[in-house]
Amino acid sequence: MDLFRQPLKPINLGLESFRESIAAQGVEVVAVDWRPPLEGYVELTHTRAGVDIDAANAEAVRRICAGQPLLVDMGIAREVIPGFAPAGKARMLITHSGPPITWERMCGPTRGAIIGALIYEGLAETPEAAAALAASGEIEFAPCHHYNAVGPMAGIISPSMPVFIVRNETTGHQAYATQNEGLGRVLRYGAYGPEVIRRLKWMETVLYPSLKAALAVSGPIDLRSMIAQALHMGDECHNRNKAGTSLFIRAIAPALAEAVRDPTVVAAVLRFLDSNDHFFLNLSMPAMKAMLLPAENIPGCTIVTTMARNGTDWGIRVSATGDRWFTAPAPMVQGLWLPGYTAADANPDIGDSAITETGGIGGFALAAAPAIVKFVGGTPADALNATLEMYEITAGEHTAFTIPGLNFRGTPVGVDVRKVMRTGITPRLNTGIAHREPGVGMVGAGLVQAPQGCFAAAFAALRSL
Amino acid sequence: MDLFRQPLKPINLGLESFRESIAAQGVEVVAVDWRPPLEGYVELTHTRAGVDIDAANAEAVRRICAGQPLLVDMGIAREVIPGFAPAGKARMLITHSGPPITWERMCGPTRGAIIGALIYEGLAETPEAAAALAASGEIEFAPCHHYNAVGPMAGIISPSMPVFIVRNETTGHQAYATQNEGLGRVLRYGAYGPEVIRRLKWMETVLYPSLKAALAVSGPIDLRSMIAQALHMGDECHNRNKAGTSLFIRAIAPALAEAVRDPTVVAAVLRFLDSNDHFFLNLSMPAMKAMLLPAENIPGCTIVTTMARNGTDWGIRVSATGDRWFTAPAPMVQGLWLPGYTAADANPDIGDSAITETGGIGGFALAAAPAIVKFVGGTPADALNATLEMYEITAGEHTAFTIPGLNFRGTPVGVDVRKVMRTGITPRLNTGIAHREPGVGMVGAGLVQAPQGCFAAAFAALRSL
Repeated sequence: MDLFRQPLKPINLGLESFRESIAAQGVEVVAVDWRPPLEGYVELTHTRAGVDIDAANAEAVRRICAGQPLLVDMGIAREVIPGFAPAGKARMLITHSGPPITWERMCGPTRGAIIGALIYEGLAETPEAAAALAASGEIEFAPCHHYNAVGPMAGIISPSMPVFIVRNETTGHQAYATQNEGLGRVLRYGAYGPEVIRRLKWMETVLYPSLKAALAVSGPIDLRSMIAQALHMGDECHNRNKAGTSLFIRAIAPALAEAVRDPTVVAAVLRFLDSNDHFFLNLSMPAMKAMLLPAENIPGCTIVTTMARNGTDWGIRVSATGDRWFTAPAPMVQGLWLPGYTAADANPDIGDSAITETGGIGGFALAAAPAIVKFVGGTPADALNATLEMYEITAGEHTAFTIPGLNFRGTPVGVDVRKVMRTGITPRLNTGIAHREPGVGMVGAGLVQAPQGCFAAAFAALRSL
Repeated sequence: MDLFRQPLKPINLGLESFRESIAAQGVEVVAVDWRPPLEGYVELTHTRAGVDIDAANAEAVRRICAGQPLLVDMGIAREVIPGFAPAGKARMLITHSGPPITWERMCGPTRGAIIGALIYEGLAETPEAAAALAASGEIEFAPCHHYNAVGPMAGIISPSMPVFIVRNETTGHQAYATQNEGLGRVLRYGAYGPEVIRRLKWMETVLYPSLKAALAVSGPIDLRSMIAQALHMGDECHNRNKAGTSLFIRAIAPALAEAVRDPTVVAAVLRFLDSNDHFFLNLSMPAMKAMLLPAENIPGCTIVTTMARNGTDWGIRVSATGDRWFTAPAPMVQGLWLPGYTAADANPDIGDSAITETGGIGGFALAAAPAIVKFVGGTPADALNATLEMYEITAGEHTAFTIPGLNFRGTPVGVDVRKVMRTGITPRLNTGIAHREPGVGMVGAGLVQAPQGCFAAAFAALRSL
């Protein structure tokens, strides 16, 4: 009877909205943060072939952390990306972000960026002609990831575009990415106006040869060290790259002065880099790709090696299942909007930039970048909690990338599909937001969680191994 | 009787060692962080003349926060610092950090730096001859602060040295500082070997004219904005200036390429800046000085306008008492040691760099710079607590300088002598550590608290106003 004389206190398991409605009535309620496992979850410790999954995953994390990505050179996509332009075959390849998709199912910004790329390549003079060409079947479309390349947002790489070449010195794997254009009305956000094409041409004819010449003077640039430093300087290296961009400028500027004879060109290149705090994104992305490549195709390994979105589908690839994509519809992003735009203007989540989270930085290192909330929304406490939550679904902590505010704890690295299934927690990303129509560009930036569907599909495949 | 049947739980007021000894016996003890007011403390709300002290202090904080320090130009000390070389008078002035001091009472690193400066000026060929000249009475010594200049560590400014000119656009006040030499065996840490003199000559003949020419192209550089950004990038702008230095390089590099014809000079200047993550210290210091100058000489104001150490004495000046110094013996610094050195090699606390804490950054903004603990010791939690403690003794929160990790709270600014007296808490600084002997250089970096004596002396003077 004593028990019933005491004040009763409800315990709420899971759904926050239930807790809120009880608390709204003035009742003290204990909240337990719990979610049921996703449908289809079973405990999985070994493959049918008897492989110890934990051991396979530990090996994947070891390989990822051991990677030493260096920016070694630059080149033109068709000349340096293996397979991009096979000899003896007349072919026009354009790669895009995310999993494979046809022109018919492509979202607005991807279509816009392809229209821009065809104008840039001189294959069409008007957006209408470019769209007709794109729809004609004469252009081959494929994911950047199929060529070990990565592209932010629409992620378009066309044959004439200059790319960074990043080599993982530990294993020899190479990854590629274009040069970052800046924010606003830019190709990767789906814009294709004359100023977009003019900027891309300047990047091909002035920026690229200058940086390539400077790299020849400076020698390879250590991106592993640069990312590690940037994480100690308030970047998470996905949507905040202010420190990384600064460190890159410091590294390249003296060599640029020596390698490029015309001081007005040196100054113009340095001003372009200084004007674009996101420049380093297109280096952190191929660095992560180069670090993740050695973790692919490990038997029994349930670690995610690719997360990428094409603005229509959200896709992942998992180590043990190799090149197979598992997809779900791309969700909308919760974010902050540029003046004049609202959520109604937004395209669903898009871009290969989730390679940063796949490698243990970006949204996974949000705790290192409290100032980013001014750009993507939320509070510094949210940023801290986002990182802490990611430890629940990852297999390890990074040995090179650490977070000072967490007493130099390694970032959460290696998303384990099993843990996503068991906890119902999916990876948290931060990202830019493109206008849903072709030709417009950036409308905001924000936070998003991966859809559960692609993990459930991957888990079903992993169970059958 | 019920009371005595319950387990007893001691409450410990103040001294942590008492709490520890009880806890060591397995007894649960409640610790209250409390210290008695300093001897001589009384409540003080108005001066004898009837001035409302809180209002005067609020005005001081308003003036400090309103400051807009710009790097406007550079020049040679004797030509641009007012009063440094009065016309028509043959005089050799050398300024040093901290409060006034005679050659006889100067510490080793200050003597070493003066010896180096006399060799650099061509007034002596050997350290022995320089020391004899310094002791002869022919050289005039004075604090940098008496000339609105600030110098880190020994803080030596001699007539031929180039200086930055920082102007507070809000009020017109100007402040000055030399160019930062880097770490290790450098003049400001008391070293005077040939490599030190050679570097200073290069800084005078190559670095200075290059930066001055670049500034003429770039126009004034906004240091208020740069410091605000650096605080969001893991700097506290005293002992961690990696972001500030990076931002300065970004701002100056394009103009440098345009202003300096010889690309090998451009590259050499950029490499020197890149090699020295502390370069920005000598810009954050005069920026703080220029922001603090308008807060001097406010009737009834108990806000500290100068904190500075000459390696022998620790001195403060307070707004209402104008140019009067209040001093106490300089304490030793708790820190991390460079290889081969120990605490036995260390000189007591030294330098004008406490101007950063006086203005609300440096040790007061330690929470913004968790990665600094790798350089000065402690943990990120200590860094956070150091900032939180400083809110106890300051009159306001900075409106321009904010800490992302504290949800963008303004840094604690404006040390109120009354609050130091009431709480017994003195300002926390972080600082470099010089070898106690002349001619050696840097031995470490660490954390230190201001001595209570100078605040007690200042308070006694404030009571009599």
